[in-house]
Amino acid sequence: MERTDAVALDAADPLASFRDAFVIADADLIYLDGNSLGRLPVHTAEAMAAAIDIEWGDGLVRSWHEWIDLPQAIGDAIAPLIGAHSGEVLVTDQTSVNLFKLASAALNSTGRRDIVTDAANFPSDLYVLRSVADRAGGRLRTVESDPVGGVGPSDLAPALDDEVGVVSLSHVAFKSGALADMGEISAMVASAGALPLWDLSHSVGAVPIELARTGASLAVGCTYKYLNGGPGAPAFLYVREDLQEALATPIPGWFGHADMFGFAPTYLPAPGIRRFASGTPPIISLRGVQHGVAETARAGMEAIRTKSIALTELLIARADARLTTFDCSIGTPRRPAQRGSHVAIRHLDAYRLTQALIDRNVVPDFRAPDVIRLGVAPLYTRYVDVYDAIETLADILETGAHEAYPAARGSVT
Amino acid sequence: MERTDAVALDAADPLASFRDAFVIADADLIYLDGNSLGRLPVHTAEAMAAAIDIEWGDGLVRSWHEWIDLPQAIGDAIAPLIGAHSGEVLVTDQTSVNLFKLASAALNSTGRRDIVTDAANFPSDLYVLRSVADRAGGRLRTVESDPVGGVGPSDLAPALDDEVGVVSLSHVAFKSGALADMGEISAMVASAGALPLWDLSHSVGAVPIELARTGASLAVGCTYKYLNGGPGAPAFLYVREDLQEALATPIPGWFGHADMFGFAPTYLPAPGIRRFASGTPPIISLRGVQHGVAETARAGMEAIRTKSIALTELLIARADARLTTFDCSIGTPRRPAQRGSHVAIRHLDAYRLTQALIDRNVVPDFRAPDVIRLGVAPLYTRYVDVYDAIETLADILETGAHEAYPAARGSVT
Repeated sequence: MERTDAVALDAADPLASFRDAFVIADADLIYLDGNSLGRLPVHTAEAMAAAIDIEWGDGLVRSWHEWIDLPQAIGDAIAPLIGAHSGEVLVTDQTSVNLFKLASAALNSTGRRDIVTDAANFPSDLYVLRSVADRAGGRLRTVESDPVGGVGPSDLAPALDDEVGVVSLSHVAFKSGALADMGEISAMVASAGALPLWDLSHSVGAVPIELARTGASLAVGCTYKYLNGGPGAPAFLYVREDLQEALATPIPGWFGHADMFGFAPTYLPAPGIRRFASGTPPIISLRGVQHGVAETARAGMEAIRTKSIALTELLIARADARLTTFDCSIGTPRRPAQRGSHVAIRHLDAYRLTQALIDRNVVPDFRAPDVIRLGVAPLYTRYVDVYDAIETLADILETGAHEAYPAARGSVT
Repeated sequence: MERTDAVALDAADPLASFRDAFVIADADLIYLDGNSLGRLPVHTAEAMAAAIDIEWGDGLVRSWHEWIDLPQAIGDAIAPLIGAHSGEVLVTDQTSVNLFKLASAALNSTGRRDIVTDAANFPSDLYVLRSVADRAGGRLRTVESDPVGGVGPSDLAPALDDEVGVVSLSHVAFKSGALADMGEISAMVASAGALPLWDLSHSVGAVPIELARTGASLAVGCTYKYLNGGPGAPAFLYVREDLQEALATPIPGWFGHADMFGFAPTYLPAPGIRRFASGTPPIISLRGVQHGVAETARAGMEAIRTKSIALTELLIARADARLTTFDCSIGTPRRPAQRGSHVAIRHLDAYRLTQALIDRNVVPDFRAPDVIRLGVAPLYTRYVDVYDAIETLADILETGAHEAYPAARGSVT
């Protein structure tokens, strides 16, 4: 394979025009970190500017007429991307806070005390889930899973018994990129009398998700990765409709009250998903979520997934061809159906290699201790970006350019 | 008093020039709702645009180097406005979520189960505090206070015993504007072995606050009112330095971890105030907080308070002169030392009067069942605004113009 082959793939790419929907400030930048922070959609820049200058600056408090329904309206726009129905998704708070709310409410509703998760789950999820279990008088049970292949039913089975009320897992693992089998696991969890709670942060917008069809009960997820909502943009939560009334949020704020401007002294949860809201949402950041979601919906999850697989296949093939002689290995499942939209390249010098790549205008991220994480975002990542990134990494390894960098661990991406 | 007297007061106002620091899109608008949503500072519009276009659009994930310390840096900027020290204030989440975190952590640290609050506290606070007490196996005890004068030590005394771990009150009451005696109440609460937890949402940026000097232990507050941080901008929390290590947040997220990029499986709280962070903060909204806080600091809390009192004195005087014949009454303490920066005008037709005022380009807000709430923000509210607003209200009452509006309760401001 030559670079011209990658160029040809881009020329034939049905999603190629979507790149124009994003701000590309530096045409030479190879950005492979859309799985950490997605790019800025052109319409988002316009919408946020209008939200600041016109809605806030001019409309002032009167603009609440337009803002008040945004958390539900954007939730409804996310719903079809994750196989949920209208009225089942709310954009609110941050992922960790939403996980706390849903895990607490779910555990409480089951009358059980323990939570099961994967030891390789995202650390913030581990911390929150442990706190929830502790506060319920139970404990967090962590199962070990294959560091590349991720968590599967056989890992979970021994941990399930009638003290387990919630099983919370990431759909796509933050480090390896392994894609869990949502249907099989959700069914198994449900048959054990527990509620499955999925963290979709690394899959939403990159992998088709079928919450309703697979029997998933609860989910949370982030909007600033493949949904391109902006740095730290509000997260979302999903509660299957038939469960909504049975779950009581531990943080009942006025935005979740049935009559929020009635100022009643006691909490009466709103009908439907709004009952899981808490305080006043950060409107300017919330405005950023709309258009990223809209671009994703416009492209369609099937087309996105098709290109995502083609990009990660190319990435792995190029890594096999160019990097194996340098003690690199692939830390991500090789079968496309078993991975999300990023690939982990493992190397003992991953931290220094990441720094060297960034200095050559290739942006991946580093995940301790040994992972260079390369994310492909089908709406704007090109085949030639993947080709060039691996060539750059090969060149760094060949020349030893990374050895000039300090080996200290640490990264803010 | 004539209108020319109000014009003269503006001409002599030492803070007059601060109005130029805010976007005034409609010069004829009389905006008396800065206590709900503050105006847009000119520098904020610029800073948010740069955060969107340059930091996100161009810098992408690399901008986390600039963003990561913002929650603490803005907290440190707020600290002197509330009599706190550097390292005691963090900007994070929303007020209701922060109240949940601090009330839970505080109650847990005391080994007690009950919480005391004022029945007239902001409803969202009541809901959250009741949830926290319930989950601790205790209950929320609400004391009745004077609907105009607000809560005082004599209201609280009968409710305090050795089962009460936390007493949480609003510093300025959201409806009446009554200003609680922070020093006397904090001392009384502490002597009962409980922790005082103040909600500063309606006082920060309008009333000088001396948390350290008055022995306040804990506080939360909002940044989108007198601090002009933008709609739903992230809130802040304050934990006195000597208490920080003893309090464990119930929502331990990766942003509060001692080594957030170490991805350790167990939570190790960061030293200091950062341990009360949860997930990734909404950066664009967070960027909005900086300049509103900076304008407040530049003006100085003493000058702000002096003008605030002068404005509310004028407002009450004009209401006495023009509105008492129309069955209006003042629902706010008449002694300046006992109120914050808004005045409640009570009238049975408050809802319709509010709608009529808005249609005449005077924006207050309505609080059920009978309050027209008029907030004065010393950085941009003029004496002539106050004069004209009362004249407009008098004219509406005189002509009965409000009777054309539907009487239904409801408001999104």
